[in-house]
This record gives sequence, structure tokens and C-alpha cells, in this order.
Amino acid sequence: MNFGVCYYPEHWPEKRWESDALMMVEAGIEIVRIAEFAWAQIEPEAGRYQWSWLDRAINLLGKAGLRVMLGTPTAAPPIWLTRNHPDILRIDAGGQRRDHGTRRHYCPNSSTYHRHSQEIVSAMAQRYGTHPFVFGWQIDNEWGGGHTARCYCYNCVTAFQAWLKDRYGDIANLNDAWGTLFWSQSYMDWSQIHLPDQSIDKPNPSHILDFYRFSSDSYVAYQRLQIDLVRQYAPEHVVTTNFMGLYRDLDQFALATDLDFVTWDSYPTGNLDRWQKHLYLKQDELDASEHQFAYDVGDPYITGMAHALTYGLKGRPFWVMEQQAGAINWGSVNPGIRPGTTRLWTWHALAEGADTTVYFRWRSTLFAQEQYHSGLLQHDGSAGFGLADLALLRGEQQQLADIARQPNEADVALIFDFEDLWALEIQPHRSDYSYLKHLFVYYRACQRLGIQVDIIPKSGELNKYSLVLAPTLHIADEELAHTLKQYVIDGGHLLLGVRSGFKTANNLVTDQPFPGLLRLLIGATVRSWQSLPEQFGWDLSTNIAGLNGPATYWLEVLKPDSASVRALASYSSGPYSGQAALIENSLNNGKIYYHGWYPTDPQARAVIGHLVDKLGFSRIGDLPRGLIARKRGDAIILLNFTDVIQTANITGLPIKVPPRDVTVVNSLVSES
Amino acid sequence: MNFGVCYYPEHWPEKRWESDALMMVEAGIEIVRIAEFAWAQIEPEAGRYQWSWLDRAINLLGKAGLRVMLGTPTAAPPIWLTRNHPDILRIDAGGQRRDHGTRRHYCPNSSTYHRHSQEIVSAMAQRYGTHPFVFGWQIDNEWGGGHTARCYCYNCVTAFQAWLKDRYGDIANLNDAWGTLFWSQSYMDWSQIHLPDQSIDKPNPSHILDFYRFSSDSYVAYQRLQIDLVRQYAPEHVVTTNFMGLYRDLDQFALATDLDFVTWDSYPTGNLDRWQKHLYLKQDELDASEHQFAYDVGDPYITGMAHALTYGLKGRPFWVMEQQAGAINWGSVNPGIRPGTTRLWTWHALAEGADTTVYFRWRSTLFAQEQYHSGLLQHDGSAGFGLADLALLRGEQQQLADIARQPNEADVALIFDFEDLWALEIQPHRSDYSYLKHLFVYYRACQRLGIQVDIIPKSGELNKYSLVLAPTLHIADEELAHTLKQYVIDGGHLLLGVRSGFKTANNLVTDQPFPGLLRLLIGATVRSWQSLPEQFGWDLSTNIAGLNGPATYWLEVLKPDSASVRALASYSSGPYSGQAALIENSLNNGKIYYHGWYPTDPQARAVIGHLVDKLGFSRIGDLPRGLIARKRGDAIILLNFTDVIQTANITGLPIKVPPRDVTVVNSLVSES
Amino acid sequence: MNFGVCYYPEHWPEKRWESDALMMVEAGIEIVRIAEFAWAQIEPEAGRYQWSWLDRAINLLGKAGLRVMLGTPTAAPPIWLTRNHPDILRIDAGGQRRDHGTRRHYCPNSSTYHRHSQEIVSAMAQRYGTHPFVFGWQIDNEWGGGHTARCYCYNCVTAFQAWLKDRYGDIANLNDAWGTLFWSQSYMDWSQIHLPDQSIDKPNPSHILDFYRFSSDSYVAYQRLQIDLVRQYAPEHVVTTNFMGLYRDLDQFALATDLDFVTWDSYPTGNLDRWQKHLYLKQDELDASEHQFAYDVGDPYITGMAHALTYGLKGRPFWVMEQQAGAINWGSVNPGIRPGTTRLWTWHALAEGADTTVYFRWRSTLFAQEQYHSGLLQHDGSAGFGLADLALLRGEQQQLADIARQPNEADVALIFDFEDLWALEIQPHRSDYSYLKHLFVYYRACQRLGIQVDIIPKSGELNKYSLVLAPTLHIADEELAHTLKQYVIDGGHLLLGVRSGFKTANNLVTDQPFPGLLRLLIGATVRSWQSLPEQFGWDLSTNIAGLNGPATYWLEVLKPDSASVRALASYSSGPYSGQAALIENSLNNGKIYYHGWYPTDPQARAVIGHLVDKLGFSRIGDLPRGLIARKRGDAIILLNFTDVIQTANITGLPIKVPPRDVTVVNSLVSES
Repeated sequence: MNFGVCYYPEHWPEKRWESDALMMVEAGIEIVRIAEFAWAQIEPEAGRYQWSWLDRAINLLGKAGLRVMLGTPTAAPPIWLTRNHPDILRIDAGGQRRDHGTRRHYCPNSSTYHRHSQEIVSAMAQRYGTHPFVFGWQIDNEWGGGHTARCYCYNCVTAFQAWLKDRYGDIANLNDAWGTLFWSQSYMDWSQIHLPDQSIDKPNPSHILDFYRFSSDSYVAYQRLQIDLVRQYAPEHVVTTNFMGLYRDLDQFALATDLDFVTWDSYPTGNLDRWQKHLYLKQDELDASEHQFAYDVGDPYITGMAHALTYGLKGRPFWVMEQQAGAINWGSVNPGIRPGTTRLWTWHALAEGADTTVYFRWRSTLFAQEQYHSGLLQHDGSAGFGLADLALLRGEQQQLADIARQPNEADVALIFDFEDLWALEIQPHRSDYSYLKHLFVYYRACQRLGIQVDIIPKSGELNKYSLVLAPTLHIADEELAHTLKQYVIDGGHLLLGVRSGFKTANNLVTDQPFPGLLRLLIGATVRSWQSLPEQFGWDLSTNIAGLNGPATYWLEVLKPDSASVRALASYSSGPYSGQAALIENSLNNGKIYYHGWYPTDPQARAVIGHLVDKLGFSRIGDLPRGLIARKRGDAIILLNFTDVIQTANITGLPIKVPPRDVTVVNSLVSES
Repeated sequence: MNFGVCYYPEHWPEKRWESDALMMVEAGIEIVRIAEFAWAQIEPEAGRYQWSWLDRAINLLGKAGLRVMLGTPTAAPPIWLTRNHPDILRIDAGGQRRDHGTRRHYCPNSSTYHRHSQEIVSAMAQRYGTHPFVFGWQIDNEWGGGHTARCYCYNCVTAFQAWLKDRYGDIANLNDAWGTLFWSQSYMDWSQIHLPDQSIDKPNPSHILDFYRFSSDSYVAYQRLQIDLVRQYAPEHVVTTNFMGLYRDLDQFALATDLDFVTWDSYPTGNLDRWQKHLYLKQDELDASEHQFAYDVGDPYITGMAHALTYGLKGRPFWVMEQQAGAINWGSVNPGIRPGTTRLWTWHALAEGADTTVYFRWRSTLFAQEQYHSGLLQHDGSAGFGLADLALLRGEQQQLADIARQPNEADVALIFDFEDLWALEIQPHRSDYSYLKHLFVYYRACQRLGIQVDIIPKSGELNKYSLVLAPTLHIADEELAHTLKQYVIDGGHLLLGVRSGFKTANNLVTDQPFPGLLRLLIGATVRSWQSLPEQFGWDLSTNIAGLNGPATYWLEVLKPDSASVRALASYSSGPYSGQAALIENSLNNGKIYYHGWYPTDPQARAVIGHLVDKLGFSRIGDLPRGLIARKRGDAIILLNFTDVIQTANITGLPIKVPPRDVTVVNSLVSES
Repeated sequence: MNFGVCYYPEHWPEKRWESDALMMVEAGIEIVRIAEFAWAQIEPEAGRYQWSWLDRAINLLGKAGLRVMLGTPTAAPPIWLTRNHPDILRIDAGGQRRDHGTRRHYCPNSSTYHRHSQEIVSAMAQRYGTHPFVFGWQIDNEWGGGHTARCYCYNCVTAFQAWLKDRYGDIANLNDAWGTLFWSQSYMDWSQIHLPDQSIDKPNPSHILDFYRFSSDSYVAYQRLQIDLVRQYAPEHVVTTNFMGLYRDLDQFALATDLDFVTWDSYPTGNLDRWQKHLYLKQDELDASEHQFAYDVGDPYITGMAHALTYGLKGRPFWVMEQQAGAINWGSVNPGIRPGTTRLWTWHALAEGADTTVYFRWRSTLFAQEQYHSGLLQHDGSAGFGLADLALLRGEQQQLADIARQPNEADVALIFDFEDLWALEIQPHRSDYSYLKHLFVYYRACQRLGIQVDIIPKSGELNKYSLVLAPTLHIADEELAHTLKQYVIDGGHLLLGVRSGFKTANNLVTDQPFPGLLRLLIGATVRSWQSLPEQFGWDLSTNIAGLNGPATYWLEVLKPDSASVRALASYSSGPYSGQAALIENSLNNGKIYYHGWYPTDPQARAVIGHLVDKLGFSRIGDLPRGLIARKRGDAIILLNFTDVIQTANITGLPIKVPPRDVTVVNSLVSES
């Protein structure tokens, strides 16, 4: 495992650089990320470049023994560009042009911005593409941060029209695809199509979904424009960028395709309250019978799922490009951290498949927006708790490196798809419904059961996994149906959940009985579904151990269509009493399950536990809330995110993990 | 009672139409409403009409035995109109122009839109005005839906100035009427007057009220423009439109005047949480000692009051033009319904005076905004619970028809006035005050006491009623004072409530002691009033059985001015202890009551019960929460909106009504 | 003590004026404020003045024995000005131009508005500057009311650029001062700088602070423009204006400088819920063990602190220019008041240093926005509770006058600084943090301990006080550090609190260890700080009587740097267990305390009580919640804001104060 740090030499007197570099090296840091917001310092006027300070900084850092990752500085255009070309500025859904003064205020479809981006990236890559101390590039910074994924400017209107023309060819196809004969919406010409931001009520959902796809594609294209230039001038360097964990507005899989590896910015306490509200069913959230997380560590399941998604983007080790190491400045409380917390987060990243952790930032800034954001050093240069933890980690570096080299293998895959997410965000049907929340309950179940789970895209390779969880295959086409069928025929086990197969690729409802193209696969029809108010549910009848009712929130009723189908659970109250709620279908050597209601935490554990036990692959064991366990090769890493000692039973041996601490056991021993 | 359905043949393959029509007929449906959003299908380019599909649809439906109601399609202008004439688009209070893509995005004062509306309505009415299968017309759709009652575009600025000039003649009159010498607001010229949407704080309340009146008048005029053309070309057809129950932004009485009969769109679960929050005092809302409504039926008092208002618009039977028959897509949870719920709603409509129920919609759509809205058929064409209920209703059709023919008579009237509502919405004084809430507590009291109540306008005929409830005659003029006095002299009984007589027609405070022009009538002066915080109230001293304090929320203190006045309740604590809270005045054969505080649910029941007992007309009897009883001629229809068996005592006989079910008893028997 | 009233003769028939004037005189009123919104009546067209009505009103009032204070009417420009010169209209942060129809819709930097303001003020001052019945002037009305302190129009853009140029001279200085090299924000030219209202995220905090300063300066300049003219034409008259208590958006100290004395508009029930939520820590707010305030009196600590701030603006007696005397119209509930409440408020104002109370308003208006605002007379001219209270006060006028003449002396000063407030509002770090809340807990502690406290500016004279409380000296410079040091050397006692010394004048973080320039003074370093979530805290170890943990919310860790420093409290749990939390440093004859956590109500009382006891100056004694005691010379005024009898122990003698009543005791007696 490698350590790095985010550094802004331009923020500090040049005479300070050397001691900073020496302190970094002494702390065990090998990598420095710099320059990702330095456009105005590099090109203070259009076409006039000022390289000397950056040359000196890179040389000084490199000579101290550090390797440099350069950011292309396009996330923050300089004033001569924003004032001379206001057409590069993004416009919000409300029609308001966003001004200079922070970052990401550009439109990804502005040809003016493309041209200037090409110039600055070419200039930097030409200068540093073969520099001995530079080894890699971060493209821009946090695509879509600050709610900038979707721009509503005139550039985007015409680009969207072109994108649609490219997709549909003929306007009649678009009208069909969007169902525009509803409410006389039909278009006669591409030029009549605006962005979905000014209508009386919610716009047409197919219109919105295409706009989301277009917006995501716009960033993919803009990223590629930069990558091509970097690869041209820096052919030996690695190219990446920093994602934002569970960020939903852009297709991270698509963005990851063009990168050598991916990274993300991990701030476990950031907006924790909002995330928990978004991701937990109310009844799960209120469960007071289990241990609470320590106040300064975040929610390890949320952080863990973000790690897992990032790992899954390319199915290989990733970096944490910005690792929180103290208080941040953008949450509602921004709690301070305690000794040990930074170490716990670092071990967690490793356990989930990271091989490099870059801390944000070296030292707290004295000016501008991030004055209240911590660094490894405090404002006055004294050490914060993060730096002290880094010293501990350095002592563990051999162990960390050994584990980082271990394979990160999983028996279970969880399918994650951004288009499914968007389609449900556009039409949640109940205001508190969320695609991510639904996946999260299954993800959490795996974690609590001690099961290794990979997050993969719809196009991922399924055969590696004994069990594939697909809680919401919302949009389904023939190809997907075929792929899934083949996986099962080949002996795979597949679990589908509610709202699967509901939509076509155009975000229309399937014209077949639900779950549409997946119906033959499950061997049953979803006869009907109901959303229920908070206090209501239907009882369950089942032989699955530990599975208790009621089923709540979102319920679907299943009618088996084939003799191969068995009901594993049925409703025993409500308007569909006696009818199937969870079914199993057999196909050749494999099995398909359709889980007909949105489960609570304990229900998801019972169902997944039942399947895994039948499949017979080993689990680390049941884990209490707040105790995370991940297997890397022979090692099992146990991480305790609570303030009490927690115990895991690793095949019979009780392993105690101190509060906010890490324990590594050798699984070969404990499994013998 | 007739059954109908809303159908969109343009949404389905033509080959499906015939089986749809046959299924409708088999289900007992006689009426089909079509085409109210089909402008783009009828006139795909300006001036090019495409009638053939609509001809075929009407003929096919008609030949199957169905009668067709056509909608004029003006609620959704086509793209050639919105793009060629963006001046027809409405502008919000915030200044944002609303774009194509949903519906109701037009300005009711656009002369361009008037011209195109006249053309499409003329063309349709000419073609189908004498068609054998067409019998009626729905003008536009849901006036004001999607918060579109008030437009803030330039058309509206000039139209408003003309409206004001017409009303006031001279600018000096307007300055007087609005009290513009306050804060130097005075106008010198009509052209200086803008719409009340851009000021620092709340605009002048007289300015706002006039703008609300103008906006309502604009829709009345726009509706009349269409009605005149329909009547010209379809002289034998009925003309109506679909209102939205308790919708507050347009004067439904004024709109109803030009229609043959009225209809409304009944969605009992729609925004239920928001309506209950709006309509119940907090202490009434929290009463847990009574049965809760079933989760899938809505609040029967809210639905009932909407029925009653719609009945009252013309004082004669109405239609439900869109009856919910499953889950909807625009609430916060959108619960599914159970077998029996659609039947319960249909009986409820009948009991409240509907003679036709048109279900929305025939089949769930596969595309666009309403994908998650249920129909009688599910997406795949299979039957939903609504269709099954319709089969039950068909078996009861003779009974329904018999009852529908019975007179719908009431002893009590409740006066409802949109200008009073608006004046209080503009100046609620306490943020949670609502005109509608105040009326609703009296309406509920009548329902719980088993009293038939009609909702009537201020101009309604009072003499038909033994008792007239006028909880908030906020704006009063000489004519109203005279009418009420005459009603009482003629032997009527009149109850006035708080905030009556406070305002003049110009929304100024009366310059006389409160309640202004109504003071002589009540024989007393409202000396003062107080709004109290939630936990505070003043005790009551009274001989009225069951009436207990404290009086809370809004309290007025009465000083009798005449010997004919008796205090029926007095305050016994607080700063006005010992002074009158509820008075009775006698005038010739009649009596007037002034109810000096805003009552809770039990207080309203006690007061109304007391008056009714003294008047001696019969009540159905006390009813538990959730059990609705309505008398139609000899029949008493009992409707149970809870999940438990409820019992009504009908003149001594206990009648049990199963959960979510209907029981009809013959009142002549039970009263004998 | 003098009584006055706000009167609008232009709102009433001229024939009513005389009886109004006679009733005023009879009620003991001596002062009438008029004309502050009468521009349109005075100058109905540009340049055409209409003086006769105002002449008559002033003469009639004067002859009745009343003295007149005239308002310059610039808070509400007339329609000929707003329509002919729309460039005078203010624009909101969202870019929306605010229209005619209420008040304060002008830009303070509009040269057009300056010119017209000069004309109307000159004309009025020329006409009435030597009028025998006029004695004073109110400039404009409630600077910044209705959130108008900051305008975002084009006038303001250029004025701000000029202001910045004046402040920084060279653009490079501005870039340094704002730290614009962060995120490539650097400016090349003054014309590139916009207002901080359109960025993606929060703008640069130094940019915002300068814009706040500029906005405040704009009003100071605009006020001076008027004052200069008034002084020129009315050299013998007093000049003041009416502030708004704890209003935060303009620097009231700066505005006060140019006035002869200051006044404020006291509405104790106005937005009480929002103020309490803003000003109390949640744990303090929820303390149910103490008496609640009566529902109609407001929060006496909030009202009291507003009085104290207003007194402190010039350190001398002030007026209440608008004293609530009944229900208001702009809160969420607007409760009515009871007999005695107006008297209690009047006594409270006196006790806090007011020498004149002007009631708002004479009579409730019949029209426009304030219809629901009470007056001394009700709408119909009958007496409200306020007028009855005024009769009582008249009977007490000799006593009131005696007390008003007494010195208003304090042993303790509390430093209040608007720039510190703004800097923390811009960057609260935790969303519920507030500068004012932090000061308020210390203010309340003083009140509960029976300590007289003055609010003073940073530039205030410290030597008058035994103890200076400076809870948040957030922005510190050398001069401040020197002043404080000198105060302590001279024997003063100074308490600093959290977040002191954190910032430079440019709103950058100090580049020295915290608390920056104040570090030498306290003899210790703030090693680190933490914001903690609601339920968490660190225990305290201390010998201070009554001081109990935990420390919560905001915690700082102190490391003594000097042998003269003693820890008075230390943390005994958490990551800094054993380290100092509250220290005392000695310097010559004085002492400095640094209070390292944000205290709860009881903690603040314990700490301040400890210091005061050591200093040995006398306290009135411990006071229960809701009982206010203020010493004026020999008199102690006890005010009970609850609904129960409360008892104060005045040096051993229990003094009972009835509910919502006042008791005055002679402190010389009780202290003997």
C-alpha cells in the first residue's frame, strides 16, 4: 500500500516547500498530487504560460524522493477565460448562469471551453509528459461536483438536439420512443426540443432519461478529449481521475472505461445525516437494539459500498485520491476526529481493494473556501491526529503491502446500473424510494453475513460468481434476458428484486406482463404491486429460518407460470393473501429467485443467508452492526467502527476487536 | 347511476380498440370520455386537420354501444403553436416562462391562444356537433391544475390594467379602494400597475385580491369563448368541464354558471397528507381515541366536502368525471387499493349527489408522465381491482339508479365563498389559519351528527334551509346584510363565526365596529379578538350539553348591544373572563348565533347539535369517525371508511356496517 | 420618561385629527412621529410639492400640545420615481428586480435615488427645519428591513468595484487579501469582480465579508447624505433613526455614529420562535425545569439584549421608536396581549436605559399591509389594552422619570462586533453556529446572576469595567491585541471565548498558532478544536463551584505557554483528556481568561459567577428564569415575565413580584 498527499505549493511561501517535502518523506509519503486548480497560476493571461514555479515545485518534490501526479487544471477556469467568454459558464435548471468564484462553473459542451482545455492540457502534457519526477495525471477534478453534472445552457440545447438526432435518426422514432402523443407533446423537428427544465409539472420521463444519458456522455467525451492529449504527450504515464463514491448523476462505469485505473475521494463524515436518511428504510434506521457507530468514523456500510462501487468500476485495485484525515468543512456538524480514526479509514480502504491512499490535504489552508477543512498538518504547521495515525500506519506498512498483494475475491456479485438508478430517480412512485437504498439493503446483508460481494455493471462477467444479486434490473432488453438465462443455465444462481423488468431502454413500461422480458426466466408473472404507507404491511408465511413479516413498503404479487417454480414465501394477509411473495425457479443447473417485496435489514439477511447456506460457500460469519470483516487472500481484516469492543466468531474462534481498531487474522488457521 | 371511463384510443394500436370497447360494454360502461389531450393528433400542423382516426374511434365506440363525450383539447397546445407563438406560454410568479412538455402551459389572456382555441374548438364542434354517437363536451381540462390559475406574463399585465379600469373607472377610485396612500403606493396611471409578484414583502392585500378576481374572471371568459362555439355547432349536446374538488384558486361557482352541469375529478388518496395537515386543527388531527381511516380510502370527510361543494355549484346532481380506481402517481406514497375500495368510493359519490361516475382511466399507459397511474386494466391489459369492483357495482346498478333518482335534500346550508377564502389566504394573520379549515370543522360536525348539509354560495337561496351556517362571512356588504336579515325575519336560523363582517368588498377593514355591517344583525359588537399560541386557551362557561373548554386558536369577545341577545357561552378565564363567547339574538321568528371562537371538532359538534336539537329537525344520529351516512329520499346510505366493523344507531336500531363496505337502510322503516 | 406615538394623519379623515390629538394628550403622550412614509402625499408628481395637509397636521398636533418628529420619507419612493427610473429599484441575490408596492425597494447606491432623496429631504427640512412644533427627524425607516441590506444591482457592482479599489489600491493586494490563488480565482482587473451571488458553491469568504462591509458602508453614506441636509436646514433639531434590535446585516455602531441618539423598534413577540431557535443551544432551549415565559410577553432576554445593544450603540439613553402595544401582523401566530403587558414592556425599556417610548401605532389601519397590526386604538377607535396600560403608566410617570434620570452603570462589558458576526455567519463551520447565540449565553448568564452588563464595540472604552467579556474576538489585529493587553496591565479582567483570534481583518486564517495575535495575551496556545455532534461531549475536571460537564458543541484544547497560566478546568475524557479547557493568565494587576468551550446556560453562569465572586463587586443576586432585575442608580427594577409569582432575594430580603408585573426596590436599603 502506498501513501500520498494532496499538496498546493502555490498556496505557501516557496521557502516553506522544502521542509514540507522533507516532512512528507519522513511521514512515509511517496506520492504528491498537485496543480489540479492552478490554471490561473500556470496561464495567468491567455496564451502566456508561467512554468517556472511549477518546474521548481516538481523538481524540489521529486528530489526529496516524491513522485508527482499532476492534475489538469480544467475544473477551475481562470478569470480571463470566464470574462472574455461567458458562453463557457454553466446555466442551472432554473436558468441562472453560474459565475466565476468557485469551481466547475463551465459547460462541458462549450466548444470555446473545449478549445481552451485542449490548449492548457497540451501545454502541460508537452512540458511534463516525460518529466522524470512526474508519473501520472488526474484529469480535471470530481466530475459533476457541486451539482454540475447537468448544464442547461444554449450550448447544451443544440448539443442535446444533435445527440438525439444521432440516437433516433428520424423525429418519428423519437416521438415513439418518448410516447409524445401523450398530452400532445409530439415534436415535428429536432430544433423544437428543449431541455427538460421549464415545464409546469414533471417532464416526460423518457425525455429526462435521455437528457441524463446525454449529460453523462458529454462528460465522457470531454474527459476523452483530455485523455487523448495526455496519452499523446505522456505515453508512459498513468491516467486517472477522482470520482465521488456513490455519486449518482454521471455513469461512473462509462467514465472509468477510458482511464488506466480509478480513484475516489473518501470523506466518511461528509453529509452523513443526508446519506443515512437517503439509504435506510425508516424502520431499519431506528433500530436501537444494535451498537451505534462512533461519532467520528462515518457509516462503514456507506463508505464500504462506495469503496466497492469504485473497485467494481474496473474490477481492480483503486486509489483513494482524497482521504479524509480530520474535520471537513462542508457537512452540517463537521465533527472532529480522534486518534485512530484515520488509520481505521486507511485499513478499511485497503480491505475493500484500494492499493494507494492519498490524504487530503497536506496542511490546512489559510484562505478561501476551505479554511475549515483539516489537513495532516494544522493551520500553523503543527501535526494533526491524521499525521500521528500515518506514523502508526508506516509501522504497519509491510503488513499492509502484503495484504494489498492478496487477491480480492468474491463469491457474490451485486449488479449496479446508472440508467436503472436514473429511471427510478425520475419516477420513484413513492417519494422516499431510491434505487441506491434498495441495493444498499442487500449490500448490508452481505456485509453482516460475512460474505464477500463485488459490485459489477450489467455488462459484467457473471460466471465468476456463485450468486448474482440483481435487486432492480429495472430496464431490461433481450440481450440482458439472454445473458442472465445463459448464466443460470451454466449453473449460476440469480436473485432478482422488485421493479425489475419494468422498463424498456426508452424508459417506457414494457408492453408485456411484468417483469416483461425477464418473465420467462423467473417462470412467473408479477400480477400486481403496491406501495404501502409506513405503518402497514402484509404478513408472510415461509419456511426460511429467521424470515419474519410483515412485508412492507413495496410489495409485488407473484403467480407461478411453470411447474419448475416453488414459492419460498407467500403473503398471509392483505388482498393477495395466499399468493407467492418469493419464488425459486430451476433452470438446468442454476436457480433464479424473485424477491417480491422490498426487504428490511433482517429480512434481507434471512433471504441471502438462506441462499448462501444452500449454495454452501463459506462465510466469514455473522457480524454485529459496526464490525466489518473483509477477506483478502488468507487474511481477514476486522474493523470495528463502534466505541465498544466487538467480537466476531471466525469459524468458532471469538476474535475481539477494540473500539475503532483493526485486527487481522489468518483465515487459513481459523478455518482449519 | 351511469358508469363511464376515460379512454385514449390514440395511445393504443387501432387493432386493440374493438376488444377494449367490447370489454367496456361488458363491464357495464355506457360513457366514454375521449380526446381532451389530442390536439396534436387532430391538428398536427397549423390548419391541417387529421380527423380520420378520431372518426374511426368514435364510430367504433358508438357502434359497440357507448356514448362519447369529447374534450376540447386546449389544455395541451401542440408544438407548432408553442414554438411559433411563445407569447402564449404562461409565466410564473417568479418570472419564469413555462415550456412545452406537460400541459396547461398557456396564458388564458393570450389573444393568440384565444384565436387558435376558437379554431380548434370550431373545427371539432362543426365535425362532431351533430354526430350520432357524441352527446356532450368537456371544455378544456382541470382549470388551474398544476398551479396555473394565475399567470404573470405581459398579456396578463395589460389585461389586468384593463380589468381594473373597467372596475374602478378612475385611478383615484382604485387608490381609495386599495388604500394606496399607505407606504406611498399611490398610482397616477393604469399603466403603472404591475402584477403583485415582485415586491419586497407581501403586496397590498386589495391589489392581490383584485388580481385573484381578475385571474378567475379570465378563465370564466376563456371558458365562455369555447362554450359559445360548442353551443353554436352542437346545440343538442351537453356542456361541462371537470373541476378539482376543493381547489381554491378559481371561483368554481362563477365557472359553473355557464355549464349545463358540473363534474369533478375525485382522487381520495391524492395528497391526503397535505390536505389533512391543511384542514385539521392540530388538536383534532391528533385525536387517537377514534378509529383511523383505512389506508387506501382517503379521508371521507375531505372527499365528502369536495362532493358537497361540487353538488352545490349548481345545486343539482353532478358527475365524477375522473374517479380514482387504483394507485395514483402524484402523491407522496401512492398506496395501492384493495378490493372494495373503488365500490366504496362510487357509492360515496352517489350518496353525495353524483349521478354518473367516470373512471380514470381505462388502462394504465405505457409511456409518459402517467406510467404509474392505475387504470381499470393494468398495463398488460389484465384486470385491476377497480374492474372487479365495477362488476359488483353492476350487480347493484338497479339499487344505485333508484337511489340516484331520490331527492337529495338538506335542512342545513353551509355558505362557501371564494372571495372570502382568498381574502383570508392573503391575510391569514396566523400562518396556519385557513378559511377552508374553518368551514371544514362545521362540515365535519354536521356529518358526525348525521345532518344533511348543502354547500351554497353567498347568493344561494337561504329559505330552503332551517339552519344556515356561515362560519366566515368575511367580506360583507349591505346587500348581504339585508339578505341575511330577511332570512332570519322570515324564521330562519343563522350561525355566524369568527372573522365575519371584517372586510369590505375592496378587502379593506370595515370602518365600523366589528362585525361591521353584520353587527346590527347579531345585536352585539365584537370588542376584540386574539390569536393564541398552540397550548393556550380560555375556559368556557356554558349550559350547552357537551360543550367544554378551553376555547383556543382564535377568540373573539362579544358585547351584547341589545336586550334580545343572550349569551350561550362566556369566557371564564383569560383577559375577557365573564364576557360573552357565543350569543343568540332573536329577530321576529328567527334567530342569529355568533360563535365567537374557532371550535375544535367536539366543540363544533356540541354547538351545532344544540341548535339542531332546538330546531327539532331529525338527524340520522350520532356517527363514529369514519362512518358516513347520507339520506337520499327514503334511503340512508351508510359507508364505513375504516378497517373495523362500525355501528350506527338509526333511530334506535343498531346497524352494523362491515369494513370498507356499504349498507343501505330504508329510513321510513327505521323512523317509524 | 416621555411617551410618544406613531401617527399617520394622511390615513384618516382630516376631521378626525383633532379628536385624535386630544386623546393623545389626555393619554399622556407628548411626542408624535409622522410622515415617514408620506412621500407620495408630499410630492405627488416629480417636483410638485403638496405641503398644506402636512402643515395643517403639524399645526393641529402642535397646538394640542404635542411635539412632532418628522420622518424623511425615503423608505418608500413614489410611483413616478420607480416607474420613470427603474434603475433605482433594488435587485435580489437571485437576480430578481424588486418592484413598487411595499417599501425599501430602492438601491442605496443609485445616484438617481441619491439625487431625488436630496431633493425631498432638502424640501422638507427647509420647510420644517425651524418650525416651532417640530423638534426632530427620523432618517428613512428601519435600514435593511425586509432583507434589503444588500442589493445586487448594476449600480452596486460598479460601486463595489470602486470601494474595493479604494480599499486595496492595487489588484494584487486584493488577490492577496482574498487568497484568490485558491481555485484559480485571481482577478486581473477591478471590472472583473462581480458580487458574490451567482457561484456554484459558497463564494470566497473574504469576497463576501468585503461585500457585507461595502453594503453597510453604502447605508452609512446614504444616511449621512440625508443627515447633512437636515443639519443644514434644521440646525436646532435632533436627528435619529430607528434600528431593529439584534438586526445583523448592517453595522449599527457605524450607523449610530452620525446620529444624535439612537432608537429601535421593539416587537417582543415578533418572530419569537425563529429568534429562540437561533439563539439557544438545543439543550438550553429544552430545559423544562424552569418557568416558561408568559405567552404574550416575548423572551425578556432577547428583548433585553436588543435594548442593551441599542444602549451600547452610543453608550447613552435611547428611545424605543416603535413599541409593540398589541398583536402584530408579521409573526407566525401573532398572539394577542393581555392587560399589563404593554406596561411591562415599557418598564423593561426604561430599566435597560430608554428614556422615551413611542408606541406603534395610534390606531389600527383599515387598509393595506398592516391591517392586522394593532394600535393603541382598535380599528373602530375604541381603546385597546395598550391604551389602558398607558393610563397606568401615566400614574407612574413621576417614578419613571426619577429612574430615567438615574445613572445606568455596569461593572461588566460584553464586546459586540458586526464584522466578527459576519465572518462567522459566512463560515459557521457547523450549520447551527451563531456569533449572536454565543454572546447571548454570556449575556443571559449575567442577567441570571444579577450583574449589570453593557454591550460595547471593540473600540469601546474598557477601563470603565471591572470585567470585559469578549466571547468571540474572531478577527484580531495588532491594535486590538495591544488595547486588550493594556486594559489587563491596568488591572482589568478579560474573558475570551472560543474562535477568538482566528481571523485577520481580511477574513483569512491567522498564520500563527491560535488564537493568533491574542496568544501572547492568554499565555497559551489553542492546540486544536472540535465541533461535536449533539449527543457527545467531553467531561470536565474543575474546582469551580457549580461547573459541571460535559463540554459540548465546540471545544478547544489549551496548552499553557507560560508559568503565569493556571488551568481552571481541564478535559477529563475524550482525545485531549488531561489538557486544559479554561485557563487564567495573570498580567501585572489584571487577569485574562480563555474559556475553551462553548458553554451551556448553567456552565456560563458558573464561570461568570466564579469570576465575579473573585472580583468582589456586588450582584443583585441569583434570579430565576423570567425574572429580570436591573439597577438604575439606587433603584432595582424587578420585572416578572412569567405567569407565576416569582421571588428575588435582594441581599437577603425576599421580594415577590406578581406575574407580568413590576416591583421597584431601593437598593440602598436592601444593601444596608
